[in-house]
Order: sequence, then C-alpha cells, then structure tokens
Amino acid sequence: MIIILNPGATEAQLGELTADLEARGYGIHLSKGVERTIVGVIGTPERDKEDLIAQFESLSYVERVIPILKPYKLVDRAFKPEGTVLNVRGVEIGGRRLCVMAGPCTVESPEMLFETARFVKEQGAHILRGGAFKPSTSPYSFHGMGEAGLKLLAEAREMTGMPIITEVMDTRDVELVCRYTDILQVGTRNMTNFSLLREIGDTRVPVMLKRGWASKIEEWLQAAEYIASRGNYQIILCERGIRTFETYTRNTFDLNAIPAIKELSHLPVIADPAHGTGKWSLVNAVARGAVAAGADGVMIEVHPSPEKALKDGSQSLKFEVFAQMMRELAPIAGAVGRSL
Amino acid sequence: MIIILNPGATEAQLGELTADLEARGYGIHLSKGVERTIVGVIGTPERDKEDLIAQFESLSYVERVIPILKPYKLVDRAFKPEGTVLNVRGVEIGGRRLCVMAGPCTVESPEMLFETARFVKEQGAHILRGGAFKPSTSPYSFHGMGEAGLKLLAEAREMTGMPIITEVMDTRDVELVCRYTDILQVGTRNMTNFSLLREIGDTRVPVMLKRGWASKIEEWLQAAEYIASRGNYQIILCERGIRTFETYTRNTFDLNAIPAIKELSHLPVIADPAHGTGKWSLVNAVARGAVAAGADGVMIEVHPSPEKALKDGSQSLKFEVFAQMMRELAPIAGAVGRSL
Amino acid sequence: MIIILNPGATEAQLGELTADLEARGYGIHLSKGVERTIVGVIGTPERDKEDLIAQFESLSYVERVIPILKPYKLVDRAFKPEGTVLNVRGVEIGGRRLCVMAGPCTVESPEMLFETARFVKEQGAHILRGGAFKPSTSPYSFHGMGEAGLKLLAEAREMTGMPIITEVMDTRDVELVCRYTDILQVGTRNMTNFSLLREIGDTRVPVMLKRGWASKIEEWLQAAEYIASRGNYQIILCERGIRTFETYTRNTFDLNAIPAIKELSHLPVIADPAHGTGKWSLVNAVARGAVAAGADGVMIEVHPSPEKALKDGSQSLKFEVFAQMMRELAPIAGAVGRSL
Amino acid sequence: MIIILNPGATEAQLGELTADLEARGYGIHLSKGVERTIVGVIGTPERDKEDLIAQFESLSYVERVIPILKPYKLVDRAFKPEGTVLNVRGVEIGGRRLCVMAGPCTVESPEMLFETARFVKEQGAHILRGGAFKPSTSPYSFHGMGEAGLKLLAEAREMTGMPIITEVMDTRDVELVCRYTDILQVGTRNMTNFSLLREIGDTRVPVMLKRGWASKIEEWLQAAEYIASRGNYQIILCERGIRTFETYTRNTFDLNAIPAIKELSHLPVIADPAHGTGKWSLVNAVARGAVAAGADGVMIEVHPSPEKALKDGSQSLKFEVFAQMMRELAPIAGAVGRSL
Repeated sequence: MIIILNPGATEAQLGELTADLEARGYGIHLSKGVERTIVGVIGTPERDKEDLIAQFESLSYVERVIPILKPYKLVDRAFKPEGTVLNVRGVEIGGRRLCVMAGPCTVESPEMLFETARFVKEQGAHILRGGAFKPSTSPYSFHGMGEAGLKLLAEAREMTGMPIITEVMDTRDVELVCRYTDILQVGTRNMTNFSLLREIGDTRVPVMLKRGWASKIEEWLQAAEYIASRGNYQIILCERGIRTFETYTRNTFDLNAIPAIKELSHLPVIADPAHGTGKWSLVNAVARGAVAAGADGVMIEVHPSPEKALKDGSQSLKFEVFAQMMRELAPIAGAVGRSL
Repeated sequence: MIIILNPGATEAQLGELTADLEARGYGIHLSKGVERTIVGVIGTPERDKEDLIAQFESLSYVERVIPILKPYKLVDRAFKPEGTVLNVRGVEIGGRRLCVMAGPCTVESPEMLFETARFVKEQGAHILRGGAFKPSTSPYSFHGMGEAGLKLLAEAREMTGMPIITEVMDTRDVELVCRYTDILQVGTRNMTNFSLLREIGDTRVPVMLKRGWASKIEEWLQAAEYIASRGNYQIILCERGIRTFETYTRNTFDLNAIPAIKELSHLPVIADPAHGTGKWSLVNAVARGAVAAGADGVMIEVHPSPEKALKDGSQSLKFEVFAQMMRELAPIAGAVGRSL
Repeated sequence: MIIILNPGATEAQLGELTADLEARGYGIHLSKGVERTIVGVIGTPERDKEDLIAQFESLSYVERVIPILKPYKLVDRAFKPEGTVLNVRGVEIGGRRLCVMAGPCTVESPEMLFETARFVKEQGAHILRGGAFKPSTSPYSFHGMGEAGLKLLAEAREMTGMPIITEVMDTRDVELVCRYTDILQVGTRNMTNFSLLREIGDTRVPVMLKRGWASKIEEWLQAAEYIASRGNYQIILCERGIRTFETYTRNTFDLNAIPAIKELSHLPVIADPAHGTGKWSLVNAVARGAVAAGADGVMIEVHPSPEKALKDGSQSLKFEVFAQMMRELAPIAGAVGRSL
Repeated sequence: MIIILNPGATEAQLGELTADLEARGYGIHLSKGVERTIVGVIGTPERDKEDLIAQFESLSYVERVIPILKPYKLVDRAFKPEGTVLNVRGVEIGGRRLCVMAGPCTVESPEMLFETARFVKEQGAHILRGGAFKPSTSPYSFHGMGEAGLKLLAEAREMTGMPIITEVMDTRDVELVCRYTDILQVGTRNMTNFSLLREIGDTRVPVMLKRGWASKIEEWLQAAEYIASRGNYQIILCERGIRTFETYTRNTFDLNAIPAIKELSHLPVIADPAHGTGKWSLVNAVARGAVAAGADGVMIEVHPSPEKALKDGSQSLKFEVFAQMMRELAPIAGAVGRSL
C-alpha cells in the first residue's frame, strides 16, 4: 500500500501518520519527492485493503492511497499457474475440450425440457442447463417451477447422461438445489449477494459464478474468492455481458474479460452470448468470438419455440440455429488447438 | 405493447402474428405505413411485459417490440398522487420536515456507537443508522457484529429516542433484524436479490430500498413493486449513486433521479451522498444539492475518528463536518419550503 | 511516477529498467517489499505522463505504472487558490453573484431571438445564449443560421445589454465567431477536438468548455489546460451531464463534479441542467441542486414555444417555467451566501 | 413516429396535437387503448427525427415519442444488401480476404517507420498505418510530425507497395492529408466533429471512421451517414472499444458491434484490439475473437521497441508478438471461410 500526501502536508502530520502505521505494526518506506511525499507501507494485509485504504483516505492531509497487491489470493493465477480443470461426472471444464452448456432458459414443462435436452445432446452439448428458480425484474413475471423443475432436470439427466446446471438464488434453497444439481449457478444479480456466496462456499458442489452486470473483473474475482475462502475450489467463471450506454444490445459482451481472466486467474471461464447480447441473431457470432479468444466453453439458451418461451425468448436459439452454431464452433475450436 | 415488423415481413407472417395474438385474447390495432407495419396490441398485461416482449422479439420478422405502460403499478405516482408520508415512531419521512438519518457505517463498539448517536441527536438528526450485517467486496474484511450489533442499536435507541435503521442481507435474518429495527435497509448489492425483497414484502416493517449501482430508475421502482406486491407499502427509496466511467469519485450521485422519482412515484426518496461520492470532502455539497432538488432527507455516515473506522472511513464525516452540514442544510431546507 | 514490477521480475530486468531511467535523467527510489518491487521515479515530467506510462507498461516485467502528479498545472487549484473570476462586459462569472446564461438553443429567427432575449433579461438573466453553428447527430437536421445568426445575436446584445455566448465547432470559424461573440462555447462533442482547443487558446476571448459526455473530470481539466497552455486563461467550465446506462433521462447530470471542480481547479463552473437531464420537467430541480452544491451559475435553454423549436424542444423551458426557476433559484442562492 | 399521450391528456389536447400534425402535412393513425392514447404519425421524415421528437416531447400532455424508422439511409444494409467492398490500390476491404492494417501508432523517424513497414509487410499485412497528426489528452505530449510524417509514409508506401492510412484531425488539414494518404482515418475523439465529417464527405478519398468511445452504434452509423450524404461512399467502420466502468482494461472492446454492424449496415468493419484493450497482452486474443465474429480485418499497432514508443507503447505489439498474431489469425480466418 502506498500513501500519497497532499502537497501541503506538514512534518507533524507525516509524523502522526508514521507513528500510527508503526503502532499498527507496519514497516515504512519514505520517499520525499519535489512535489509530493510518498509513504510506502510494508507488510499490509492487502486482502482487506478496502477498509484500510478508506481509513487513510479519510485523513485531510492524504491525497490518495494506492493498493499494490491484488485483493484475492486463492483464485489468483499465481496460486495454480497450470490452470484449474473441473471434472463434473466425466465432463471436463477448463481442459482441452470446449464445454457447451445448453438448454432452455427456464424449465417450463417436461415435454419442452426433454425435447430440448435430447436435441442439444444430439448436437454435441455436454451439460444441460435449465432454470427452476428464476430471477425476474418484475414481481408479476414467472419465477420458475421450483423443486418440480429440479426433479425434471434430474430426469433429463437420467435420460441423456448430461450433468445439469441450475441457478440458486436464496441461501435457504442451497441445500435443496444441491440435492439435485451437478453445478450450482450464481446469477448476475446475486454476484454480490455475499450470504449466498458463503453458503455455497460451504458446500462442495461445483459452482458457476456469473459476473455482475456492473462488476469489475477484480470484484468478480473477489466474489470467487468468497467461495474459495470457505473451501469450495470448484469454481467456474461466466462472462455474460456488462451494462453500458449502448441500447441496441441488452448488454455489452466483454470479450476483453476472457483473456484478462486467463492472465489473472486459474479458473475456467465460460461465455454466455445470449445474455451478453440479448438478441438471438447475434449469439452465434459472439459465441465464435469468445471461443477464438480463449473461452473454455459457452452457455446457450435453446428453446423449441422461442416465441412461446416463458423467459428470455428474444435471446433463445431455435433448434436449427443452435445446430448451426455447433457446426460453426467446431472449426474455431480447432483453430485455437481445442476440440468441441 | 406495439410490435414493429421488419420491412420485409410478409402478409402470411402478419397473419400468423395476429392469429397468435387473438388466440392469446388480445385486441389488435393495425397500422400500415409506407415503410413499416405496426401492430398495436390491446389489453396486454404490461406488468409482465418483460417475458412477452422477449417472445415476440424472437420472431424473425419482428424488428422491435415497444412497451407502452409502465411495468409497476402500486408504486406509481398515479396510484397515490398526493405522495406517501411514513411515520416511524413519530418521525415523518416524506413530509414537510426533512429526515436526517445519521450514524456510523458499522456498529463497531458500544462506546463509538453511543458517542456518535448522542452527537448526531444533538445536532438534529432524526434517525440513527448503523450496520450490524455488512456487505464487503472482500471475504477477508469485517462483516459486522451481527445480533450483538443489533442489541447495541436498540440500546442507542433507548438512550436517544431516535428510531433506528439497519441493513438486512440474508432472507434467513429478516425475522431477527425485524425484532430490533424500526426500518429495514436493503443495500445496493441486494436490490436485485428478489428472494430478500419478497421476504421483506411479507413483513410489515418499513423498508428503505437503495438503488442498485447499475439499476435504471424503472428497475428500481420494479424492485419496490416487489415489496409492495406482498403488501408492505411502507417503502422509502434511497439514491446512493450509480457506477459510471468516472474514477475521481467512487460513484456518480444521480441528482436527476430525485425529481424523476417525484414524477414517477409517490414514495419518499432519501439521498446518500457518502456512497454517492465516496469522498467525505464532497458529501456536504452533494447533500445540499439533493435537498435543493427535492430529496426528502439524507443518510449520512458519521464516525468519531474516520481514520480508525472499520468500514467506509474515506466517506464518513467527522463530528465537526457533520455539524457543519446540518448548519448548511437548514437554509437550503427553508429555500425549498421545508424545515430540518 | 511509480513502477510496480511483476512478482517474477528478475534482478537483471530491474537493472535494465533502472539503467534506462538513469539514462533518461531520472532519479530512482527503490523499495523491495515481500511480494513486489516498487520503483519510484523522481523528476518525471508528469504532465506528459500518458506517453511515458505507456512506454514502461509495455515492458513484460512491469505490472503497473502509477502517476503521482496531476496531469495539468495552469488550471490546478494550487495555481490560483483564491479562484478565478471572469469579467465579461461587466458580468462577473465565478464571483459572489450567480451567473444565469439563458436563451434559445438555436437562433431561428429575429423575432424568436429578440422576444426570448427580452424576456430572459427581464427575469434577471445575465448572459444571452444562442446557437448559430449547431452540431447535430443527424446530417439531415438543421445546422444553424451561421453568420446571419451571429449578427442577430449581436443585435440582441445591443437591444438588451447582455453579453452573448455562442458555440464554435470548426477551427476555420474561430476568427469569424470571435468577431461577434463575447464568450466562445466549446460543445461536448468537441471537448477532445484538440485542434479547436488550440485555436481558441490562441485567441484572448473568454471560452466556456463543456465537459465531454464521456470524459473524466481529469480529462476535462486537461482539455482546459490545452486552452490555458496557449495563453488564454479566461476559461469557464460547464457540467452538462455524462452518458450512463440510465435511459429515463438523456444524460446523467454529474452533481459530484461541481464540488470536485472546486477542489481541483480555480476555474468557475456552470451547470447545464437542460442537457444534463434532457427533460424540461426536471430542469428546475437540477438547477436548484447545482447551485446549492456550489455551481457559479446555470445555462438554460428557453424558447417561446418549445413544440416548434428547431432543436432541443424537449429540454427547453417555456417562458413561465423559466420565470419560476428564477424565483426558485433566488432563495437557494441566498442559502449558500450568494445572490442572483 | 408514434406519440404516446399522458393518461390525463384531454380531448382538447388531442385535438390540438392532431391539428398541428395535419397542418404540418402528416397523416394520423389514432389508437385509443384503455390506459393510453397513441398517435401514429404517418409520413414523418424520420431522418431528422431528433428535432421533431424533441418538439413533441416538449408538450406537457405527451408522455413519450418513439421513432420507428432508422435515422440513416445511405449506410443502411437495405441500401446495398450484398455489402460494400472497397478496393484501395488493389487491396480489398470487406471482401473474402481479411485486411490487416499495421504499423506504428505514430511516425517517429524514418528508421523506425521503414523497419516496421518492412516487417509487417513480410508478415502479410496489407495496409500500413502510422500517425502524422496525433490527438493527445495532454497538451504537453507529442502531437506528431505533421507533413514530414506524411512524406515518410508516402516513402514507406513506395518501398513496400502497401497503401497507407493516416489520421486527419482538422478541417484545414484535409486537403493536405489527402495529397499523401490512400485512406483517411477519423479518430474516436472526432467521430462527432461534424465539420470534419462534412469536409471528408466532400472528398472522394476512402475513409475509416472510428467509433466514438461513448457513441451508440446508431450514432456511429449516423456519423457515417454524414460522410455518405456528401457523396463519399467509400467508408470503413472501425470498432475500437467503448468506455465503461471497467478499469483493468483501458476500453471495453464491443464484440457485439461486429455482428450488429453486419446486420444494420453494408459497410465493412475493422477491429482495433489495441485501443479496444489498451494492453498488448490482450491484443492477440481479441483480434482472434473479432475475426471469428465476422470482422473484415484488424488494425494493429506495431513498434520495434514499445518501451521507447512516443505514443501508446503499452498497447503496441513487439515484432515477435505481431508475427504470432498473424500465425494465429490464419486458421481463424479459415474457420470462418476467409483467408488472410
């Protein structure tokens, strides 16, 4: 941590600051420039920097406090330079083979779920997705089938052999959802629901953590650190677009985040081009781009008839568009030394 | 709801669409322009527009779907044009008198809480704030004293006569927190934690709903509608700044939102200039601005020694700065026909 | 400037870096922490930091480069702690009295200009605004009357005694516009048109520099520095809202920027609530808020019949709404120790 | 254009509105719903919708005005469904073969320019880039060599056979730059410098228009329409990242914009991953992603020693990194049916 003093800071104030730092047990490295005095603070526990920085920034003679270390440790690339590969019922995530998660946004009925599950399996998908508990901006919208939906997902797993992934939104539901699912999903709206992250951190069930729509990459990794800090290391990250000023698309898919995550963390990263665009007609192009940039897989919403979908119809792929995406992804996977 | 067809949409597609709409029980109002055909859909339940719009946008021959009605009803200004005034243990929120909520970010100890409570009371604050359950970006930061903190808040209420407000983050804690607090607070990170909103909607305890840092005003009102739709109408909104590209300040306080909420909703709106700026030196100016623009009050973080604050030191006011703010707010309140 | 090395940086790389720095004539202050080595660079000309930082960030063994000094000098508060007060034909800007600039968005005809000028003068406005050269997102929109508009503005000045302000968009027009106007205006779209800034910096005509809609406060001050660095110190800043994800308003008026500018710079700052909101119904509230937060004045678009305005009708005030704003601003001005 | 009235709008107000519309020569299509009255306006010249919408939005009884048609015509996909392919001295842009534009950010000296030009040519680049007039956030930074730089670029063209592209920032320089360059470049800071766009529209020199860092896709296409409306149809678009809240990267490369432009416009689109990320270590991944998503080429900054680059060192590729990018792009190009 580095503390930059105001140009007008006095010697007395500097003395007060260094005394405080020493009383807290830190080492000090002082650098007096022509225009600014800089105090290097040695031995600061940077992982809880947030609060410490705020303390020193509250001093009237301090101009700025700059953290040096990253505010996460367990999910840092340095912690596991070779990268994490998860194995979920035989399906690898983060390995050489891309992982395609596909299925309906929401479990609506046995028929539509089974039909979709069978189709995506045939086309080469590896994991079945489907929502039983669904967040909705409006209180009057459909909120999912709940446990009945989880049971249908489990049935579809039996039927197709595909592991399943589904969202959990409430700390009270974690145990229930874990009874059925192979991978828990934390949605964008809950990335900063720290109670939920802790609860999931206490399970040993793999989890896919979606990026908050207005969360920085560093904050996203801190959210992952929440889970890891409780002992659950089976974490998958999912880039799903961020909120910007652009209105033609629902979100702005942050392609930069794919290689950035690869630099910063050892965790696998999946792309969600459906939420990342909000428009089915853009999904395939963005899926190709994400894989070419190094994503470990894609999560895709598929629906037999999107115009009847209870949720997210505008970004769900029809069967034939999904099939086309799979055909297009294969050569891209090959071009980056992977397979589908 | 209005559906705009692609320029190339055929008569057959238009027929298919209108047949579908009629089968769903909607009336249709057709308008064929030179370049576009527009289908007005009569009788659509616009409150769950989100899903319906997505369905029609999934059709390849549809260019755009435009909602007409607002996606909330109970919190709409039209529902109560005269405005809502809450009364919490004798303190009015939304009335002629401004409401000042003040206290430490986090309850750290009896001494600092009681000292702060007494001071802000003396200066004219009406409600005591203090966190017992605290969200933190980092898992390694302080997360609050929990129930022990709630007990201290209740003691401070006895001591000063001020009602208290404190945050709840977990559906499982709602009952516990309700046992102590006068007003529940939903933080920015949980504005889209819909499980929590519903749980709070089932209580009859007043609640202050902070705006999500990347939530539109309309979404904020929909979150309030979640609470109202369960029967809890005692809702206060709180503008606390949104996330933008600016880095000099931690957030951008959205002043526009103050008069916008007054146009759109009957709910009172409080300004939080501490989070809205992230810098104590800007707090007083923004507090004055918010009140001049029509805010029903302010929420302020005050700490006896911000440089030792366990949370948010950089934006907490020292005692004398808070006292100055109160002196400055009084004439502003008068200038807009209110009192402090 | 501070250079933070990667954890894996070798002694050889450190040696290479320090040799390079010394060859460039900088002093070095080395600090080896447990996890990171930090190189303090003494004597760096921080005003062109942008390029230097980029150079060192290109090194594979460098993690981050952090500037210490502000990238502007002449417009820094420290350069003139007492603040700048401009005097334009007897009207002070930045002094104790607020400055109200009002008039039509665009000069459309003699009648509407003169009628509006007379009215705003009567109501107490100090400076007449009006566009003769108008930027438009669409090439097919009205682009202003050009020199004919300037002549009308000059006539209106004769008539009312108010100094005038008008926009210049093209380096080739600077001389022409200077022949007529008292204050040049640089619009939000041209804040980064550096050729224009330099051209204006070479005149000695006062200039109002609007903030770019996606420019940070620091970049805005650097744009002002462009003008000042050529010798034109008569600069007024104007906050007019920034672009965010919010769609209910056209822009988000950045209230924080008002006190931030007062901290960082000695230049006066004017608020433009019309562009800052894009909605006439919000203008008065935001004008009050800006003045309460310390703005030195407001710029307001007024039109006799906004529903016929060739530009910006939705945010222009009708005469009676402007009159109401003036009545409302007076007590706010008083509350912050100023007059209207 | 559709006008939605306030719930409380009276019959008299509706009459006033329709009379006004008829007087302006528009047809009217009225739709009275249960909660809102909607006025469809037939025959509106939507290309200058901006001003018209603002007029009607200024009416107190109007809730919202919604444009139906796109605000551009000549650059609309519908105008040339097969897509535009430019041919610049034998190099196609927008055709089956990808177009790689490479070279230094800024022309610094003959040696570094020629060395870089020869190298990128050897590696397969098609067009040489290099700045002679450079925008800089700071007035104290290097601003380019001016005409001397243009001459060096022309020499490098002779030497390598590659056409050249270079930026023009000032209306007064357009003629000069056209004397040397094959393609004009409009930078992100000048996308809304409408005087410059018009001046370039009057030439017949191909132009690459970079997206403004805070411009919506629709506004970008309107800027292109400015150029096209003056008769210059040889336009290339360039996505270079937008400004968001993320701070790890300098900009957020908007991958969605690539397929969106392909849907909306017939113009070719180039990706600039250097500005899109601001970090050389992310450039190659983003270049691959952009091509996989359908970009017609990439623009890359290459420098023999980025740590000495006068501009943009942090995002410039060293020679070997550029060579690697070319090797990686080839199979991606193949995977999407194109060649390098």
